[in-house]
Amino acid sequence: MSGACTYVVLSGGIGGAKLALGMSHVVPTDKLTVIVNTGDDFEHLGLNVSPDLDTLMYTLSGAVDPETGWGRADETWQFMAALEQLGGETWFRLGDRDLATHVQRTQLLGSGATLSEVTLKLCERFGVGPRIVPMSDDRVRTHVLTDDGKLEFQHYFVRDRAAPRTLGIEFHGARDAAPAAGALAALRDPALAGIVIAPSNPYLSIDPILAVPGMRAAINDSHAPVIAVSPIVGDAAIKGPTAKIMRELKLEVSARSIAAHYSDLLDGFIIDATDREKLSDFGDERPDVRACQTVMKSLEDRITLARATLNFCTTLATR
Amino acid sequence: MSGACTYVVLSGGIGGAKLALGMSHVVPTDKLTVIVNTGDDFEHLGLNVSPDLDTLMYTLSGAVDPETGWGRADETWQFMAALEQLGGETWFRLGDRDLATHVQRTQLLGSGATLSEVTLKLCERFGVGPRIVPMSDDRVRTHVLTDDGKLEFQHYFVRDRAAPRTLGIEFHGARDAAPAAGALAALRDPALAGIVIAPSNPYLSIDPILAVPGMRAAINDSHAPVIAVSPIVGDAAIKGPTAKIMRELKLEVSARSIAAHYSDLLDGFIIDATDREKLSDFGDERPDVRACQTVMKSLEDRITLARATLNFCTTLATR
Repeated sequence: MSGACTYVVLSGGIGGAKLALGMSHVVPTDKLTVIVNTGDDFEHLGLNVSPDLDTLMYTLSGAVDPETGWGRADETWQFMAALEQLGGETWFRLGDRDLATHVQRTQLLGSGATLSEVTLKLCERFGVGPRIVPMSDDRVRTHVLTDDGKLEFQHYFVRDRAAPRTLGIEFHGARDAAPAAGALAALRDPALAGIVIAPSNPYLSIDPILAVPGMRAAINDSHAPVIAVSPIVGDAAIKGPTAKIMRELKLEVSARSIAAHYSDLLDGFIIDATDREKLSDFGDERPDVRACQTVMKSLEDRITLARATLNFCTTLATR
Repeated sequence: MSGACTYVVLSGGIGGAKLALGMSHVVPTDKLTVIVNTGDDFEHLGLNVSPDLDTLMYTLSGAVDPETGWGRADETWQFMAALEQLGGETWFRLGDRDLATHVQRTQLLGSGATLSEVTLKLCERFGVGPRIVPMSDDRVRTHVLTDDGKLEFQHYFVRDRAAPRTLGIEFHGARDAAPAAGALAALRDPALAGIVIAPSNPYLSIDPILAVPGMRAAINDSHAPVIAVSPIVGDAAIKGPTAKIMRELKLEVSARSIAAHYSDLLDGFIIDATDREKLSDFGDERPDVRACQTVMKSLEDRITLARATLNFCTTLATR
């Protein structure tokens, strides 16, 4: 692949950040843009918290906690312990160092900066190479319809540990939102050589991005190949509640379901090597499907998957 | 003194907290109310910070940093270090544990509680015995007129280290403020046996309290003796910029100036034992003046001064 080519990754949190980190090792960092879900954002303890943006920022700068894949390495929890003593809300864990990110973001937003501008400033401070852009500077909030009623995303996901049964998912505010300028610019870049949908939760992490009016069209209008990496391996999710949600939504838990979900977008689809025998389940039409190792345990795994994804882009583009 | 008697202390931060702590050892804790300056309060990093209330709360609960006299003991500073990395405002030092107090206060105020209610809740959590009440639930902000222009209190005091020359002091909002109900109730308590003006900065810490309409009248209307402890020993302040401000305001730096400042309120005045020879500088009229050790280095010093103050109250009341 040429160094002049640019790439876009659509990402949720931990899983997407892993692939984006791999990409950042094989693409010049100024050629890589990650468009990040902000449907998980919320206001907590008076702070503007953007969990997926932070996970990308921490992961791509090497500041992330390597054990959890979110939050900061060498974190301390004195604030949280003190807040608990005072009877404050402690279901969402904010580390002492991580807290500074939320305070600074809240300050900058309060002074009139857009989320894109704030993200850029924070990324500069963290020394992040790739461009991380929120899907939108407008407020979009994922709500999960459950048998416990409608829940804000973090209430569903963190407070209630994704235990309630999912009946549906809504992206509150999406209809009135616009893609962030940096997201559109990256998708419209003439040098764009590939759009990669990371192995994030399609329903909770990627769909909010696609729900922003204009985003889906910008992806479809691009001449660059669109490739998704399946978050489903066998009949299980690599991480998180994807498989559980699929069952609750009466979807077959398989990579094929994921491909079908993205069918109007995909040129290429990557399933895990262990699902190789399922390649014949996919038809001869779009998307072209490849099998390779998608489970990313080491940095090498991330880089290998990133390289395979880029090679796939090149193949699809030159065909 | 009888256990049925109640006492009120008017207090700023560190110096007042020391005397209040001494008082809490010689008065049943449910008989002691501390009315605290909130002119120093400010909104910082989106948080409602009440430095003097916190100093009282931490001191009376034993949570205070014994080295500094403010903030929490065994504090950590990870948040501040991370905020500095992000280019945030770091001139006002907020420890990781202390931060929880401000976040919880801000949350509770945001949900509609008064500052008195919030203070009560926080004090309960910290296990504070005496009643700590803000001078007012309304917003009063001390501004210092200096040769650098008009400065908000914390900008003058912490950011600029009280270096600018003081030309005057204003209590913004005081005219429209009312004393906190708990402050008035304590001053009107039939069992009240003494009102003690702590050796705090008269101009920056006590005057804001007295500037709240109704406060001065409530003190004067009380049958209880009013006693002040001089923050000036010799021609210097025990701590902080009191002497510097007095010079800048063209006041003689002496205990006598302090007594004159409070002249319409005082029945008794306590000067330091080292100023004993100056007793004759005071006239035979009100206030009655006593000399005793006012510099409080140890807990024993605090208790000794508290006991002397209460004895003085008893003497004045029975005379």
